[in-house]
Amino acid sequence: MHLISTPQNTPLNNAPISSHAVKPQVSSIEEEDRALAAGMLAQNPALVSMIQGRLGKLIGRSSGYIESLPPVTRRRITGLKGVQKEHSKLEAEFQEEVLQLEKKYFAKFTPLYEKRFKIVNGVEEPTEDDVKAGTAEGDEIEDSKMDEDTASVAKGIPEFWLSAMKNSTSLAETVTDRDEAALKFLTDIRMEYLERPGFRLIFEFDENEFFTNKTITKTYYYQEENGYGGDFIYDHAEGDKIDWKAGKDLTVRIESKKQRNKNTKQTRIVKRTVPVESFFNFFTPPKPPGSEDGSNAEDDEELESRLELDYTLGEDIKEKLIPRAVDWYTGEALQFEEIDELDEGDFDEDEDDDEEPSDDDRDEDDEESEEEDESGRPKQPEAAECKQS
Amino acid sequence: MHLISTPQNTPLNNAPISSHAVKPQVSSIEEEDRALAAGMLAQNPALVSMIQGRLGKLIGRSSGYIESLPPVTRRRITGLKGVQKEHSKLEAEFQEEVLQLEKKYFAKFTPLYEKRFKIVNGVEEPTEDDVKAGTAEGDEIEDSKMDEDTASVAKGIPEFWLSAMKNSTSLAETVTDRDEAALKFLTDIRMEYLERPGFRLIFEFDENEFFTNKTITKTYYYQEENGYGGDFIYDHAEGDKIDWKAGKDLTVRIESKKQRNKNTKQTRIVKRTVPVESFFNFFTPPKPPGSEDGSNAEDDEELESRLELDYTLGEDIKEKLIPRAVDWYTGEALQFEEIDELDEGDFDEDEDDDEEPSDDDRDEDDEESEEEDESGRPKQPEAAECKQS
Repeated sequence: MHLISTPQNTPLNNAPISSHAVKPQVSSIEEEDRALAAGMLAQNPALVSMIQGRLGKLIGRSSGYIESLPPVTRRRITGLKGVQKEHSKLEAEFQEEVLQLEKKYFAKFTPLYEKRFKIVNGVEEPTEDDVKAGTAEGDEIEDSKMDEDTASVAKGIPEFWLSAMKNSTSLAETVTDRDEAALKFLTDIRMEYLERPGFRLIFEFDENEFFTNKTITKTYYYQEENGYGGDFIYDHAEGDKIDWKAGKDLTVRIESKKQRNKNTKQTRIVKRTVPVESFFNFFTPPKPPGSEDGSNAEDDEELESRLELDYTLGEDIKEKLIPRAVDWYTGEALQFEEIDELDEGDFDEDEDDDEEPSDDDRDEDDEESEEEDESGRPKQPEAAECKQS
Repeated sequence: MHLISTPQNTPLNNAPISSHAVKPQVSSIEEEDRALAAGMLAQNPALVSMIQGRLGKLIGRSSGYIESLPPVTRRRITGLKGVQKEHSKLEAEFQEEVLQLEKKYFAKFTPLYEKRFKIVNGVEEPTEDDVKAGTAEGDEIEDSKMDEDTASVAKGIPEFWLSAMKNSTSLAETVTDRDEAALKFLTDIRMEYLERPGFRLIFEFDENEFFTNKTITKTYYYQEENGYGGDFIYDHAEGDKIDWKAGKDLTVRIESKKQRNKNTKQTRIVKRTVPVESFFNFFTPPKPPGSEDGSNAEDDEELESRLELDYTLGEDIKEKLIPRAVDWYTGEALQFEEIDELDEGDFDEDEDDDEEPSDDDRDEDDEESEEEDESGRPKQPEAAECKQS
């Protein structure tokens, strides 16, 4: 129970609307990963003590108690496990049907999303009925004549998606000041279901000075087999390669440094690209451990939290941002968020955002390491890919 | 984001399988409750500072930015809100269909629950097929001949439900040592859906020395109107009155105390019943603020956490204990729980349980207050009802 005591009016959870995807479960741990987990635990004595306490009770329970029961009782328990397996099959069928229902409603939502697209991008004006329906009780219905000089007014709703993203608790933290210049060109964020379990997020952009992609997509794949309780389980995510225009890659920073050759005493300018924080790193998702170019034990904990964040961002875009974008744009959706999420950690980071500290922080790190690395080869900290522009 | 960094194999959330019920939302706050919430905030400066920071951004956003937009742009935003309302209607329909789907699968689960009931209570032995299906790969299939002296063996699976409850993270904390003597008589825990949105948990007991009820039920009512995103919202819960046998009420403790009359100098024994912690308080749920005999501002925060716990317990029984009782009995279900839940708070309380500290704690409180209360009238701390036995 990590819920802060809040007014009773806060939603209990913001879980996805229906069919669930969860992170991979214990049953799917490879031996290698168990070792990684053990390594993590070794660094966290408090966690170890908690888990041991719990496991101690558990082990006492299963290896002591159940094994001590008469065979006929144990046979009954085994029989119940058999019954439970039938139940699990039905639960998986249920989740499958929920997913089909989700798809059915997604088809019903789609015309509304298309209408939103047209209004946001100035292809169409909203109808009288839409405006009437959207007017709060007691408010005056806005004039439809638009006899003002509309030519002087920007078409559609400028920066609609950027503003919506900046009001979203989780997404806002990934958007840097530099990113905003590119995210202004967003014309749509939408999604589609895959043939296999999973979904694809589609970011559509107007022509811009940053990259040539018309759309950039991010695809979340679920495991083929349902997990405990029938839930879908995340397998991995993949993102499109962004075709950055020269010098415009927002996920890196270029550093220049004078270097003196110790023998010839000649100086030269060395340029290197250094990865920086950016929303666009969302399209280069972390790779789960066990995959080909997975991590090593040292950065496992960091990888873990990056995977966690990647799932959360994808889920927030699918379940919150796309379904209710105008409420995120106006900020009204925020009142339905768990206060939980507005924790001090978040708040600090928000404040920092304005000063763009992440780049600064990295600067320091990179300056230090640079001294030892005279090769001029771009360093690749963490698991982030370093994209040359 | 309060998720502790954990091995990647921990489920992201244990949310209810499908149709969601959330706690009442901001839109349903009465003015009175807003005042209560304000009172709570006054006692928590850190929370206030966080919320203010967040609201500061928000207010700047909506009262500054949107109102400054040209009328034609504002009209487009209003139009989008109208489109969003259509979307919300569809979302509510979707949730309704998910609930229907849940009911459809509940009907499919029911024969399996009935089979479980029979095996647990010794009405039937499991079939060969059930035992085979329940046997882990590589394990020997348990002998079905039962040529041992089964007469000497207890029927069914003794203490099945009590054991399952004690392995459940949230429920275990509510079960006192005294409760166990009564919970041993549980023959079934099941549920049913209501005609209106909501569900009923049914606890069935064998004849016992504690109460005369054959079943004790707890009913959770959802609000008639769906909330934001189409979610169901908790309205309130009601529990059956337990017909305790004389002196057997597990939710109270009887205190005897000598009292000397200051005038006559005569002593007499005064008996009073004092509410104590017990799982059976689950059937006397806290009343949400705003209801007739709701709370006052002073204990609002405590009421809040009691309501939160009450929803959690109900949801855990409905979504976890009933669907997968044998996994809770063996403890196998625990590995699919969020490590999050095994926090230090939980762990401490578990340890304490063995020493039955809750009663002791109350003893001290009561002794103190007793000095000032010579009336001998049972004190009614918090909102708990004091039941005389």
